[in-house]
Parts: sequence; C-alpha cells; structure tokens
Amino acid sequence: MTETRLRVRYAETDQMGVVYYANYLVWMETGRVELCRACGFEYREMERQDGVLLAVAEANCRYLAPARFDDEVTVRTWIESANRRMVTFAYEMRLADGRRLATGYTKHLFLDRDFRQTRLPEKYWPMFGI
Amino acid sequence: MTETRLRVRYAETDQMGVVYYANYLVWMETGRVELCRACGFEYREMERQDGVLLAVAEANCRYLAPARFDDEVTVRTWIESANRRMVTFAYEMRLADGRRLATGYTKHLFLDRDFRQTRLPEKYWPMFGI
Amino acid sequence: MTETRLRVRYAETDQMGVVYYANYLVWMETGRVELCRACGFEYREMERQDGVLLAVAEANCRYLAPARFDDEVTVRTWIESANRRMVTFAYEMRLADGRRLATGYTKHLFLDRDFRQTRLPEKYWPMFGI
Amino acid sequence: MTETRLRVRYAETDQMGVVYYANYLVWMETGRVELCRACGFEYREMERQDGVLLAVAEANCRYLAPARFDDEVTVRTWIESANRRMVTFAYEMRLADGRRLATGYTKHLFLDRDFRQTRLPEKYWPMFGI
Repeated sequence: MTETRLRVRYAETDQMGVVYYANYLVWMETGRVELCRACGFEYREMERQDGVLLAVAEANCRYLAPARFDDEVTVRTWIESANRRMVTFAYEMRLADGRRLATGYTKHLFLDRDFRQTRLPEKYWPMFGI
Repeated sequence: MTETRLRVRYAETDQMGVVYYANYLVWMETGRVELCRACGFEYREMERQDGVLLAVAEANCRYLAPARFDDEVTVRTWIESANRRMVTFAYEMRLADGRRLATGYTKHLFLDRDFRQTRLPEKYWPMFGI
Repeated sequence: MTETRLRVRYAETDQMGVVYYANYLVWMETGRVELCRACGFEYREMERQDGVLLAVAEANCRYLAPARFDDEVTVRTWIESANRRMVTFAYEMRLADGRRLATGYTKHLFLDRDFRQTRLPEKYWPMFGI
Repeated sequence: MTETRLRVRYAETDQMGVVYYANYLVWMETGRVELCRACGFEYREMERQDGVLLAVAEANCRYLAPARFDDEVTVRTWIESANRRMVTFAYEMRLADGRRLATGYTKHLFLDRDFRQTRLPEKYWPMFGI
C-alpha cells in the first residue's frame, strides 16, 4: 500500500466548481505508478525493457464528496488481487482532514508490444505478490 | 437513445499509442449532453435556470478494444434507470466499422446549487421517462 | 484555409465557468488535423508511413472573449508560412454569432522517428504550398 | 521566484511518446499558484474573498526539448511585470539534470466576478511588487 499526495489543479476543476469526474482516473494512475515504484520497479522500465504494458480492462470510481481547487489529496493505492495475466488495483482518495473523496478500482491485463495478452515476466511476480 | 459522433484527438492519446482511459469518461459526457438535447432540454439551461446539477455518484467503464488517433467514434447513450433522486446513463462506444470499444455507465444524483441532494423538478420527469 | 466546428465540453470548463486556457491549444490541434485532411493527406498517415512528426516548437494564444460550456466554436486554420524544415499554422476561433474568442499560431519542426530534424518529403510540398 | 516540482503523468503523454504540448500550460498554472502562495497569499482566497479573477489574456510557450513520462520537472516561475491592471508571469521548465524543456509567459488581466476589467486591490500590490 502506498500513499501519494497531490494538489488539485485549476485545470482539473469544471464549472460546477469541483474536480471533473474523469480526473479521478488520472489520480488513480499517479497512485498506481507510485505503488509500482514502492514495490521496487519503475513502471516505465517495465514498458521499455520488457515490453509489458498494463492495459486497462475496467475502471470504476464512486464519488463521495467533491474535491476543490488547491485541496491536498491523498491517494491510497493497493493491489486487490493479481495473477500472471491480470492485476486489480484499488484506490481511496481523501482530503487532508481525512474526509473520503472517492474510492475505486482498475483492472489491468498484461499485454505485449503488439497488444496481445501476455503473462507477467517471472521477475515481477514477487512485486505483485504472486 | 442517441448517437454522438466524435473524432479522436491527438491530445487524447497516450504513449501507448491509444486513447488514455480517462478520456472515455469525457466521451460519455458528450453522449449525455446530446441525449439531454435529444430529450428536449439543454443540460446547461437546467443548471442555469433551475439550479439543478447532475453530480456523478459513480462511473464505470469496460475497455474492450483500443481507440486510436483520428478514429471516428460513435457514443450510444441511453437512460438505464431514473427516478426523482437519481439517474443512470449507459453508454456503448463503437468504431465506424462496428467494433465495440467500450461500455459503461454513470450514476448521477440531482443536487441543488448548495450541493444538497434535491428532487428533479417535475417538468423534467417526462424527459427522463419518470 | 479550413473551418472546424466543435462544441465546448463540460470537461473543458474550469471553476471560472469558462473554458480553461490550455484547451484552446487542443482545439488548434483539431483545426490543424482538419487542414491537413483538406490539403489531401491524413496527418496520421504521414506519421505512420513516412515517419515524419510535426513537433511543436512554439505555441501562442491570445484570448479575446471567454468560451462557455455547450458553445459552438469554429476554428479557422491556415498555413501562415512553410518551408522544408518548418511550418507555421495560424488560428482564429469564433462563436456561432461571429464573436472572436481567440487567435493564435503554432510553429512546428519536421522530425524523424528519432526526434532529429528532417526535411519534409517532397510529395508533401504542394500540400504545404512549398 | 519559485520552483515547483512535478512528475510527468502518463495522462500527459501523447502517441509521440512525449508530453502533449497543451499540458505545459497546465504546468505553468501550477507554478503560478505556487508563486502566489510564496508571495503570501492563496490564489483561491483572492478569487473567493475579493472576487478578483486572473483571466489569461495571452499565453506563449517555446518547446526546447521533449519531456517524457515519469520525468521530474521543475517549473521556475517569476513575475516579469505587473501593474494595477495586469500581470505577466514568466516560466522556465527544466529536467532534474538541468536540461531546459520549455520557456514561456502568460499575461493576465484582473477581472471582477462579472468578467469586467478591474484593478488589483491595494493589499495585493506588495505581493506583485507594485
């Protein structure tokens, strides 16, 4: 489990005065990348060196409270389940005062450079808890 | 049910060479707005005149095939269910050749200008099939 | 010279209630792509087949009036100047009633797949008016 | 002058494998907000309490080298010039190794809540060096 901090950008708000709903999926991505780093590998190297892509198969977000410009948001990210063919990340986003903004998950398939399903190389298994 | 057409923008792709996953939620929004228009009202007028906001409570997307720059995408949108307190929109995104890119749904609560839950004004009931 | 029409997305607004300033550069891109198509070639094919990339060297935008959600915007795009090494596109964005929203330009260098400066292949010269 | 650090998001890349050009304007915004904070006021409070908006009148960016996913970027921001009616911010973006990615500026007018030009309230003059 990792925690990533970010500050809400003006660009991320919409005319309702709160963060536009699609941007939570971008925040999930920052959490996912940090989790990979914390697990001992750089997501970008997995893509470059091993040609393994984490393609999103499903994304889900439940919005509990609105986030606003300049809020400090903490994205908590963990691996919900993983096997050699796919991984599910779960997320919880909170304000500094602890209020929950949103929860969600993303399911990913491992693909090779030609976008065919592949297995996660063995060296990554421990990092994904496989 | 409405169909909205859009062309994939370069800005919407990522370094994987396909559309970044959060952008499908933006496409859902364009479908939703078109559906409202087709139902006989402008979403922006509901917000301005009646002070009724459609706040997203949940969003879900399943990604079936990647969309690429300059692809023509059709977003099919319909109301899955609706009552005086909330509405669920469903979506299907396809390429011109009929291939399905993604399916999804968004659940929305009706809020007033102070972000408190409210009921949909009666004049909008027929449009939502209530 | 081409004209591209687009409708302002909710996602493109910010909490000021108007379109966030960076999104005008996205609109310029849609104008640029349409101009290429009108000139007889697909931008995406130039990238795929010939390995020629149009890398942005400079972008400029002057904001004259705010655009709002659901506005219909016309992006007028033309080639300001071009030679074998670079091209400058100019843009004018207007509302349906003719009011000017913004003007701008983007300067591009032709790069090969390794991001080294290259010359535009001869077959494209007439399309760029060279 | 302030320095803001950010890490390139996957969402910010495009199919060229580098950061999409409009996103540099979003980075400028994060620099601007940090500069305001360093000068002793929160941009969001100026908007909320005093009803003073910083509307962008012009934006310019020169792209010198491409930024890539997961790069650490430093945005250096300073006030180029300011008077009671407008302010110009200047920006320089660098990689951790010192390589310059881009330079740019944004010109802003002070507007009131009705989008009419206004003067910067006197209490903010020192912060803008007026």
